[in-house]
Amino acid sequence: MFARYKDMVEQELSQVAPASGNNDLAILMRYHLGWVDQTGAPAANPSAQGKALRPTLCMFACEALQGNLRQALPAAVALELIHNFSLIHDDIQDQDLERRHQPTVWGLWGIPKALLAGDTMQSLGDLEILGCNRSGVTPSVTLKVSEILTESYLEMIEGQCLDLVFESRANITAHDYLQMIACKTGALIRSSLHIGALLATDDRQSTDAFARFGSYLGRAYQIRDDYLGIWGDENATGKSSDNDIRRRKKSLPVVFAFEKASSGSREDLIRIYGQENLDASDVERVTAILEEVGAPEYAERLIQKSAESAVEALAQVALPGWARAEVAELVDFLARRQY
Amino acid sequence: MFARYKDMVEQELSQVAPASGNNDLAILMRYHLGWVDQTGAPAANPSAQGKALRPTLCMFACEALQGNLRQALPAAVALELIHNFSLIHDDIQDQDLERRHQPTVWGLWGIPKALLAGDTMQSLGDLEILGCNRSGVTPSVTLKVSEILTESYLEMIEGQCLDLVFESRANITAHDYLQMIACKTGALIRSSLHIGALLATDDRQSTDAFARFGSYLGRAYQIRDDYLGIWGDENATGKSSDNDIRRRKKSLPVVFAFEKASSGSREDLIRIYGQENLDASDVERVTAILEEVGAPEYAERLIQKSAESAVEALAQVALPGWARAEVAELVDFLARRQY
Repeated sequence: MFARYKDMVEQELSQVAPASGNNDLAILMRYHLGWVDQTGAPAANPSAQGKALRPTLCMFACEALQGNLRQALPAAVALELIHNFSLIHDDIQDQDLERRHQPTVWGLWGIPKALLAGDTMQSLGDLEILGCNRSGVTPSVTLKVSEILTESYLEMIEGQCLDLVFESRANITAHDYLQMIACKTGALIRSSLHIGALLATDDRQSTDAFARFGSYLGRAYQIRDDYLGIWGDENATGKSSDNDIRRRKKSLPVVFAFEKASSGSREDLIRIYGQENLDASDVERVTAILEEVGAPEYAERLIQKSAESAVEALAQVALPGWARAEVAELVDFLARRQY
Repeated sequence: MFARYKDMVEQELSQVAPASGNNDLAILMRYHLGWVDQTGAPAANPSAQGKALRPTLCMFACEALQGNLRQALPAAVALELIHNFSLIHDDIQDQDLERRHQPTVWGLWGIPKALLAGDTMQSLGDLEILGCNRSGVTPSVTLKVSEILTESYLEMIEGQCLDLVFESRANITAHDYLQMIACKTGALIRSSLHIGALLATDDRQSTDAFARFGSYLGRAYQIRDDYLGIWGDENATGKSSDNDIRRRKKSLPVVFAFEKASSGSREDLIRIYGQENLDASDVERVTAILEEVGAPEYAERLIQKSAESAVEALAQVALPGWARAEVAELVDFLARRQY
């Protein structure tokens, strides 16, 4: 099911990304999407491709509500483009040199070109969703879904900004943190499901329920990401497993530890997070503190709770049996994934 | 007339820019627009504000074709936001430390925040134009103008990319150059007039004529910019007058000189443009070569020709007398402006 959505999206996407007019930027975009290597030759390493989560969610919502999948395809492609635009800019912002086992776009081509490749992807995404009405969607629904997409990436940018601000603030609470990820990660996941639903039905109760489903799913997804950023297997995630701590990221387990650690451990945390560079023993010490305060269990509890609320959000929506089963499987996968 | 448009746009814009949710980025945006200083206090220096050319053109096209100005306002605001987003990113790309007599956004707040401020402005622009239909524009015209705006900033980004590519290429012809500026500067000026016209009428002949008018106007505008970048008065332009040469910009007069200079002068040009840093005597030598080959006269001839073609493009469109007079005045101003 989900593999079929991914194939449809990738086929459509492959028509868009090379058609950007300028060859130079097309290679950067195709490279970022994991299709080609840095010379433009077909990529050998399929793990450099993303999960296509957002377009998959959009297609799923549309089909679950008996919509026409063809009408959801432009929006799904737009979501993947917008997501990838945000990753390219995010890597510049965080000065990350690696993503999905590969050097980042700005790392290879420099900031100016990476900036433009991101801007181009965003514009291509905007154009895709504005073109919905050529697949038979009415102009007013096309406008509506375009607005929702735009509002959600505005929220995403606000989340990225908060994330930046948090880096230099000592007293972040778990509450602040959850608000930040609701913007940074949650908004686009929520709008993926909301848009897919709107392309299938104008029943407000159903479309709102899918949006709510997306909010909880996004929270579970991001907290799982935080968990994997510390305790994940780096071969599976494509990120160095001590990366989040080494980079002094204030992800949920760390924020929790800052709140809960006893005074001695808390002083260690403050001291280590105040250093410019962390070595292996610093990372080890921080990990030990996180485990001492029960941060992994806390994260797992929150993931579980969000996953249950996600399933609950759709309880009142009439769904065919296959869709109900997919919801359960999807939530379970996102809450337990290893990559 | 044009001052009235500018006032209307600025009033509307002031409702949008602070409402971006995140205070941090709101200051960056308001600073870039010249409204506040870097602490967020009202700005003392009005020359830090832009000319609001693109929204003015949009409003003018709408009113000249007897449209409802209120309906053009969201699009006009969107154009100003998109233009300013491109400037913020452009300054990062070019590593420019000063714009309009002030430090640039990335120069003050760093690349990550400047990147996000630019992204936010773009999204706010997208939302503004998608909201056209709340001012009574039909959903399908709203979609149409949103698509035209998006396509034009995609072209603008392609132009910025070509500009980057040209920096490291020796054999740029005037023809290559004119194609690049048609994207980089021309596209948004063209779409400003095209969108304004579409918001007033569905008469294809008139809307196409305004788009064509915009293409020529954009060319005249950019070549005048190139001229001022070398021979302008820096107090008026807000740029250091030797900036374009000192920064080894391949603007039209320089491209022309590369094509036309005699072998000795050409060798000097290649040598000086091959250096990492240029001193005052290098700038002087390049300026002398440009004048020796008649580059200023060439630029002025092209500006004049473009200005005439611009006026000619509107010859077949029925316009009220005041609008015809404004066209002549506008073209004349853009072709001769000192800033």
